[in-house]
Amino acid sequence: MQLRTGIGTDVHAFAQAASGRPMRLACLDWPGEVGLAGHSDADVAAHAACDALFSAAGLGDLGTQFGTDDPVWAGASGAALLVETVRRVRAAGFDVENVAVQVIGNRPRVGGRRGEAEEAMSAAVGAPVSLSATTSDGLGLTGRGEGVAAVATALLARSTG
Amino acid sequence: MQLRTGIGTDVHAFAQAASGRPMRLACLDWPGEVGLAGHSDADVAAHAACDALFSAAGLGDLGTQFGTDDPVWAGASGAALLVETVRRVRAAGFDVENVAVQVIGNRPRVGGRRGEAEEAMSAAVGAPVSLSATTSDGLGLTGRGEGVAAVATALLARSTG
Amino acid sequence: MQLRTGIGTDVHAFAQAASGRPMRLACLDWPGEVGLAGHSDADVAAHAACDALFSAAGLGDLGTQFGTDDPVWAGASGAALLVETVRRVRAAGFDVENVAVQVIGNRPRVGGRRGEAEEAMSAAVGAPVSLSATTSDGLGLTGRGEGVAAVATALLARSTG
Repeated sequence: MQLRTGIGTDVHAFAQAASGRPMRLACLDWPGEVGLAGHSDADVAAHAACDALFSAAGLGDLGTQFGTDDPVWAGASGAALLVETVRRVRAAGFDVENVAVQVIGNRPRVGGRRGEAEEAMSAAVGAPVSLSATTSDGLGLTGRGEGVAAVATALLARSTG
Repeated sequence: MQLRTGIGTDVHAFAQAASGRPMRLACLDWPGEVGLAGHSDADVAAHAACDALFSAAGLGDLGTQFGTDDPVWAGASGAALLVETVRRVRAAGFDVENVAVQVIGNRPRVGGRRGEAEEAMSAAVGAPVSLSATTSDGLGLTGRGEGVAAVATALLARSTG
Repeated sequence: MQLRTGIGTDVHAFAQAASGRPMRLACLDWPGEVGLAGHSDADVAAHAACDALFSAAGLGDLGTQFGTDDPVWAGASGAALLVETVRRVRAAGFDVENVAVQVIGNRPRVGGRRGEAEEAMSAAVGAPVSLSATTSDGLGLTGRGEGVAAVATALLARSTG
């Protein structure tokens, strides 16, 4: 069995509160939270997970796979991107062992909905996805509340038979 | 054998030098260094390792496991948190293959005491823990000397027998 | 078979455009791009990969292995550092399963030369190296265009026979 590790990070800036843009994070809606700006739904947790999966499979990244200008994926949900990412990773001959994602930011507070988020992400991936969260102690772009970051690692296996 | 990868990061701001707060990092005391502020002993290397272990096991994170307000763990040492983290990870059915931690910051200079720190962290985890260090070339929160960051990955195995 | 995961990050600041310092990234030259400042060729992708490999093997890091003042390695290329890193990792009894590197920054745009970069890095490592890229949405040191960061993970195997 060949094993492959991969890594992915993502950052999105908060949208203007007045924009009414919804917060999407870890394949969940977060009513009442200010959303993140960006192409697609700006779900940094899902995007970091996609990039970790592509990274482990040697398939590039969200930008090369989906393009930032491709209208098919403009506004795509994190869950939709995850489903398509895993389809491509499996088509390249890999099984997903697991994905681990950590969200870094002040808002939203992920802890209270961790189980729900892990269920949604694991359903999209078809393998265990763990979600954790931390802050950066008031420092840096996440500490100043400018945006939210996520970092993810993925483990894949390829049958050599 | 099921394998699981996990990831964890942590950041703490430096305390005021006049506060006399001691520096604790990688399960060691660093006499003469300005300490880091925070709940517990602010040992970013130990905390990132704990979060990587919880992440790989799908058990959440330091916040959900220990709470930031739980008096039992207020002021807890990084070593104590690591020991309890591994106890919970093993109770969930996992063995620790290894943990790798990188410290990012200007101070303290970790290189000279790397062996000592790895011994202390590996003793707490009961499996190999590697410690490395780098700087961010004068940029960002660590480069400006506002705080110290750490990033860690962990590999776990679960017997499927 | 014993498996080991490792992690490494690196950051370098852009040099002054007027310095004429060339950009070296992911073992490639990037003509027309402003280069990064630093010891050696400041190839953050190669350096993060080296640190991930040392981290997984428990051999320390670029600083402890090569020294920042060692004239032998001053100005060394990322490829030369990768070759020597893998030689030391193998001498310690490990085989490289794979390395995954993500570059975080505005410039250069890595996507168009990903295959070429992966070929150069994989040749240096003697095992699959994947390269991906992202930005930080205009935030932080990479978003402000102050420098380029990279994060890498490595997977090693040691025969226990």
